[in-house]
Amino acid sequence: MLTKGELDRVTVVLVAARNPLNIGAAARAMSNFGFLRLCVVNRYEVAFREARSAVGAPELLQNAEECASVAEAIGDCSLVVGTTAVGSRQVEHPVHRLEAGAQLISEHAAGGGRTALLFGSEKRGLSNDDLSYCQWLMRIPTRAEHISMNLGQAVAVCLYELIRSEGSSVVAGALAQATTVELERLEGALLGALHASGYIKPGTEAATEEKARRLIRRMQLDSADAEIWTGMLAKMQLKPRRKS
Amino acid sequence: MLTKGELDRVTVVLVAARNPLNIGAAARAMSNFGFLRLCVVNRYEVAFREARSAVGAPELLQNAEECASVAEAIGDCSLVVGTTAVGSRQVEHPVHRLEAGAQLISEHAAGGGRTALLFGSEKRGLSNDDLSYCQWLMRIPTRAEHISMNLGQAVAVCLYELIRSEGSSVVAGALAQATTVELERLEGALLGALHASGYIKPGTEAATEEKARRLIRRMQLDSADAEIWTGMLAKMQLKPRRKS
Repeated sequence: MLTKGELDRVTVVLVAARNPLNIGAAARAMSNFGFLRLCVVNRYEVAFREARSAVGAPELLQNAEECASVAEAIGDCSLVVGTTAVGSRQVEHPVHRLEAGAQLISEHAAGGGRTALLFGSEKRGLSNDDLSYCQWLMRIPTRAEHISMNLGQAVAVCLYELIRSEGSSVVAGALAQATTVELERLEGALLGALHASGYIKPGTEAATEEKARRLIRRMQLDSADAEIWTGMLAKMQLKPRRKS
Repeated sequence: MLTKGELDRVTVVLVAARNPLNIGAAARAMSNFGFLRLCVVNRYEVAFREARSAVGAPELLQNAEECASVAEAIGDCSLVVGTTAVGSRQVEHPVHRLEAGAQLISEHAAGGGRTALLFGSEKRGLSNDDLSYCQWLMRIPTRAEHISMNLGQAVAVCLYELIRSEGSSVVAGALAQATTVELERLEGALLGALHASGYIKPGTEAATEEKARRLIRRMQLDSADAEIWTGMLAKMQLKPRRKS
């Protein structure tokens, strides 16, 4: 995972993209994940600066560097990585799966090095000449039956892999889990309601208590929901339905 | 990581999407990663079946289920997960980062359970009513300054996380690393060329030899490239440039 300072050491280089909407979409994904250095090798003179697909990232697109060649685009980068959909054509390069390739880029950035991450054109990907600048290639693990991704989606997936982390699970909005006291109160209310309703037959008390305890634990309730349940069950205890 | 059989236990549910191109892009990403079950809760009667953005996935789009409500869409799923850009509004749900949420979905699938993965509309995301069907929410870790992703890109990133694996690094196309014998041959050729060129001054032989050996090891050459280098250097050895 790249730290905030390291994000700036990765330049996304779009080589010969033809559709300005794809360039804009790439810029949006870059901005989503905090990568702000975009270089467009604009072989087809695409008017991309105003692409409306760069929702939330018009400045990034305005500030993008425009280069005449891959050589110019990768100027200050000590690692040059090409992205590819397929492994068979590029026999001259090692091809890493995205998961492993992103790890190598992270290590390079952690050591202070700059990386250029090259994406080719929508139809043909990177040319052999473009590939000759790359130390190695990175492949998104698409399935063999449908390997070719949309350019904007491919950029999004690669950059996500660079910022993903195995960090903490719950990030926001979770209420506190119910405490043991709250769960026991709920359990009491449930058993009371079960008794009152005639659910518990003589001789089955112990088995039903255990069943109820397990049931409640499996629900993984938060405090608020445990209270709601307790209130509902307490009500049922007071007014049991008549058995027919 | 989901296995091939488990992919079929995840249904992507697009709720109230307005742009058919986004629905098509979602279908393309699904097909790229091997998820074939799409359900469209089509609140705005969008004509999405022929969306040209579903490159390589027209059948998936043709076969998509069309539902009138979220309740109908999630019918056979025992886990319902909503995607969200933000954690603050959804105080009633735990919000997991994508990395952790995907792990939970994988475990559910491994146990034979079906999951519905809900994506909301482009502008507003999932409504409170939609969210009420969800057990928990999942958030792509976009940066706070720009949280909102394009729908097709969000689908691609979520599905990628579900199929990513920490597996083997080099997947294809890598040639065999050069053997020690090949590297020693190269080293000999390099030293020969350095001698012939006058690079090596009397008394510096040992230091230069060590320098050359380290230099060559750092290059991590494969067999073919080592041979090319050896051939080039052997040539230089035969015809040194005259020093001025």
